[in-house]
Amino acid sequence: MSMDSRTARVALACLVEPGSVEVHRLVVEHGPAGALDALVAGKAAEQVAGAAQARLTGRDARRIAEEALARTERLGARVVVPEDDEWPVQLADLRRITRPGGMRVDRDTYPPVCLWVRGRPPLAPTLDRSVSIVGARASTSYGNHVAQELGYGLGTRGWAVVSGGAYGIDAAAHRGVIAAQGVTAAVLACGVDRAYPAMHASLFERIIEDGLLLSEWPPGAAPHRHRFLIRNRVIAALSRGTVVVEANARSGARQTLGRAALLGRAAMAVPGPVTSAMSVGCHQLLRHGAARPVMSYAEVLEEVGRIGDDLAPVPQGEEDQFDRLGPELSRILDGVPLRGAADAGQIAAAAGVPLRDVLRALPALEMAGHVVARDGGYAARARDRQRSR
Amino acid sequence: MSMDSRTARVALACLVEPGSVEVHRLVVEHGPAGALDALVAGKAAEQVAGAAQARLTGRDARRIAEEALARTERLGARVVVPEDDEWPVQLADLRRITRPGGMRVDRDTYPPVCLWVRGRPPLAPTLDRSVSIVGARASTSYGNHVAQELGYGLGTRGWAVVSGGAYGIDAAAHRGVIAAQGVTAAVLACGVDRAYPAMHASLFERIIEDGLLLSEWPPGAAPHRHRFLIRNRVIAALSRGTVVVEANARSGARQTLGRAALLGRAAMAVPGPVTSAMSVGCHQLLRHGAARPVMSYAEVLEEVGRIGDDLAPVPQGEEDQFDRLGPELSRILDGVPLRGAADAGQIAAAAGVPLRDVLRALPALEMAGHVVARDGGYAARARDRQRSR
Repeated sequence: MSMDSRTARVALACLVEPGSVEVHRLVVEHGPAGALDALVAGKAAEQVAGAAQARLTGRDARRIAEEALARTERLGARVVVPEDDEWPVQLADLRRITRPGGMRVDRDTYPPVCLWVRGRPPLAPTLDRSVSIVGARASTSYGNHVAQELGYGLGTRGWAVVSGGAYGIDAAAHRGVIAAQGVTAAVLACGVDRAYPAMHASLFERIIEDGLLLSEWPPGAAPHRHRFLIRNRVIAALSRGTVVVEANARSGARQTLGRAALLGRAAMAVPGPVTSAMSVGCHQLLRHGAARPVMSYAEVLEEVGRIGDDLAPVPQGEEDQFDRLGPELSRILDGVPLRGAADAGQIAAAAGVPLRDVLRALPALEMAGHVVARDGGYAARARDRQRSR
Repeated sequence: MSMDSRTARVALACLVEPGSVEVHRLVVEHGPAGALDALVAGKAAEQVAGAAQARLTGRDARRIAEEALARTERLGARVVVPEDDEWPVQLADLRRITRPGGMRVDRDTYPPVCLWVRGRPPLAPTLDRSVSIVGARASTSYGNHVAQELGYGLGTRGWAVVSGGAYGIDAAAHRGVIAAQGVTAAVLACGVDRAYPAMHASLFERIIEDGLLLSEWPPGAAPHRHRFLIRNRVIAALSRGTVVVEANARSGARQTLGRAALLGRAAMAVPGPVTSAMSVGCHQLLRHGAARPVMSYAEVLEEVGRIGDDLAPVPQGEEDQFDRLGPELSRILDGVPLRGAADAGQIAAAAGVPLRDVLRALPALEMAGHVVARDGGYAARARDRQRSR
């Protein structure tokens, strides 16, 4: 009996590391079950066939998949495959991840063959309106504050937040969303049964109450170093845009942002103190035009939102009385001495405007309470005496 | 006897507020003395003729100029006019200050008719290599720190720094240059004999020991509010570029930067904490593409410097041993268990690579000290056990 897609995909995920172009091509050509047959029979590129053999060690691929599925079920997790309704179709963009010249980024950036999921929300509708927030693990309290505020703001507006579940910025972003009772998704570089870092065991438990833990690796898979970089492409592809909150000069968060940009997603970075090593990476991204600066969740939504939909309010300073006065009257008011009184001619000379204009303006300034008639001339009101530019 | 250019220009500066298009046109058409004659005779646009009458009050224009010149001399100051060798020719760009569409900015942005100067350095060679640093008066200690560092760095590199002598960012920038024994120029919105703000009297005295106090207004002129905005165009035009260090949402520093950009000068802003109201203006400028982000004096010089001349070093994070290893070996090393030992087959399965590649890599990893042969297999070295992404 031919293997069903789900079981075949699970076997493929167990046998070969994710993102492989060879596996992707086999699946496109032969379907999941055919791809697995080819792989097991050694009818595949030596790199993946050899890797699969190293993991099969003479065992049956179906058996491996069924064991993984049983373990998944025991966890209360599920496997989601592209054939499912809830599959996030935006992951298909990873097939086309190219540099500006049209060249592929590298061999390991193809879409996942399947995803392990813990948490109730269906992937597709949840992640359709999502933003990724990434950044340094060794973040500063400034970065944590900003990440949490962004997560909170996006959560309150009904946007999901995708991140990596790591220390620092990732955790702060997840916690901000949780505080807003929003949905947050942690995309892990190990099995969804593993708490990595271990200190985040309770955070992950909290995340799956309303949100999602996701992984391309089967339960039990360890958080190998290279897996984080491969995982990052999923964080970039799932959402409409990625924000880097803090990053040092060589941060992995910058790689995620690069992937997002190549996928046509919004690439954003939060500025910080130029005196902070943890903002160097963000500032480099901004300086090289690789990211747009964002200062608030509203500006994030402006970047990722549809036109006319989510527009950030432009911050406005307080308008002072001189702004309201307009330049002409304001200039004449400047000619009124701060101490004592002056007549219209003296005011005109001081302000550098024709006497006629002063004579016309003084009644208006008096009515507005800016000047008072005194000693045969005009004097400034006390409240205006502190004025300066 | 016809009046000399210097005296006529001083008279014009005494009678009409700076930047006037009408005065500019009169001088272009009739020369300084002819322009003054036309102005005094009322053969000029009513706006400037009336303003001049308000200040003449029946006196002789020559007398007014000669009094101003005598007062200038008593101060130990000098008047510099476009006919002088030391006149900064870059101010002529103000004739052409237009918006992208080609429309003039406004009527009050034409070049100064003359400049009052205190301080020894000749203007033209000093200001040819200069940068303007501007920003909030109500700056934070962060902003002051950054402004001072920029001033210091530019000063040590032999660049002059132009600013406005105000509280906050201006003062911090001036002080940074002074600490570097560099040349700083304060462009005032009042006479060069007036300390405004009064608290800066000693700063101004210190500035003129090695640097410059500049003004378009004659000695005695008061710091009227509108004069600051008119003055800002000179700060923008004198230097090769303007940096805003901190600015709130409605800062005058942003106007200076706008002028600099319209004049084709480098427009720069320093990022800061997004939680700081004093960085809102900078971030808005960055977000709207109105300024380039700069994080250090080296990056400022990269923006204003000639190509190949002043290039900022790209900040580099520390390269770790895993970077040096390369992705292939690093991936195999990930397959070596953190506790206990594993044979080559187990390592290949864990890493997801062919056994053949592992057998080829292990001797290299052992030679490099990353793994040790133990218990018939291989174990990770203690120092690698803390590894993560």
